[in-house]
Amino acid sequence: MRTRFQQGLDDLRTRLLRMGGLAEQAVDRACQAYFDRDLNRCHLVLEGESQINEAERDIDELAFDLLAMQQPMAVDLRFILAVTKINSDLERVGDQAVNIAERVMDLVELPKADLPVDIPRMAGAVSAMVRRALESFIEGKAELAQAVLEMDNVVDRMRDEAFMTLVKTMNAHPDVTRQAVDALLIARNLERVADHATNIAEDVIFWVRGADVRHNVQQENLGQETRRVTGL
Amino acid sequence: MRTRFQQGLDDLRTRLLRMGGLAEQAVDRACQAYFDRDLNRCHLVLEGESQINEAERDIDELAFDLLAMQQPMAVDLRFILAVTKINSDLERVGDQAVNIAERVMDLVELPKADLPVDIPRMAGAVSAMVRRALESFIEGKAELAQAVLEMDNVVDRMRDEAFMTLVKTMNAHPDVTRQAVDALLIARNLERVADHATNIAEDVIFWVRGADVRHNVQQENLGQETRRVTGL
Repeated sequence: MRTRFQQGLDDLRTRLLRMGGLAEQAVDRACQAYFDRDLNRCHLVLEGESQINEAERDIDELAFDLLAMQQPMAVDLRFILAVTKINSDLERVGDQAVNIAERVMDLVELPKADLPVDIPRMAGAVSAMVRRALESFIEGKAELAQAVLEMDNVVDRMRDEAFMTLVKTMNAHPDVTRQAVDALLIARNLERVADHATNIAEDVIFWVRGADVRHNVQQENLGQETRRVTGL
Repeated sequence: MRTRFQQGLDDLRTRLLRMGGLAEQAVDRACQAYFDRDLNRCHLVLEGESQINEAERDIDELAFDLLAMQQPMAVDLRFILAVTKINSDLERVGDQAVNIAERVMDLVELPKADLPVDIPRMAGAVSAMVRRALESFIEGKAELAQAVLEMDNVVDRMRDEAFMTLVKTMNAHPDVTRQAVDALLIARNLERVADHATNIAEDVIFWVRGADVRHNVQQENLGQETRRVTGL
């Protein structure tokens, strides 16, 4: 009985990693589609969404079965709860990839505009966060997860910069306003992916350390949030 | 032992409702601050965030204790899992209220612009969704939750309209671009609150019906998502 339970836990971990791979791929594809103005990649992202949704449901069902199967030990219980939370975040990363693909589909229909914003650089930083968060989960290392939390501030700053330069562009060149709005929304979607990576990292720390670090971190950031407003 | 467990479940329900009240209040305050250009209300929202975060942590800890205390029956297990998911969504509703308050703080420093967007109407619709989602949870009624899912499409359409009119405004009046961007982001934050209300409704249905409706709904919406892009 215990062995079947342990196999279930391994299965849960494997499926969550596969789900993470799908979500990461969706974001990478959407950002590559932005770079290449590539409608085909956009469609791949939209089509991939149902696969991610299905994976989410399967993982939740397996987690439910494992909880119902027997009374898990505290460490296993924390692991299962962390998995269900990471699962939700990965599904929402997939949703953000869809949002980006939708904005790219809008952009492709408009004249190409030379916008002063480095979406690929921001996308690179965000992808690294997601990858690092999943690595911290695979290796069960709180230090790796901690590094993800620190990267989030960098992405927030990139988003703020993108906003400032894009608003200036809209003022100076009203003819590319719509393109600038699309780019601004893509920057915001990427920031949200970074937020999900942060959530995942916090859940890994919850699981590994058995301590809830979530809100200490958020309170530390509160000062920066406030500063961010005045910076915009 | 069973009685203590049942008391724990009641306690969990009460705390989640209180948390819901805090999140709802934060959104209402932020939107009222927009309407009145009221910095004091913005500060109340920012200060309230740590209270919401604390409530989230307490609820998660109680859920964890209940799962660890004894092997819950399937229906209780579903309830506890639904609570942990609703809990995350409510905390994120609070985050959106903070985002709105930050945008209002930016707006208040700029000259007042007459923008062709009805944020209060959108805020009203979104608040109704959150309230209805929490009611469906209190009463354990899947039909009420179902109604929330349908309201989400209405809010999505409002957001699309807001986008179209605001982009036109930026083109015609570049001097109010920054105000229009702030309003556009507030509309997007409200749409995200509506998404969280939708998630909550889905979790209620999962708990009540014992069936996972989540992705059927999302697949139905996919057609509309695609239509939305061309509409923008």
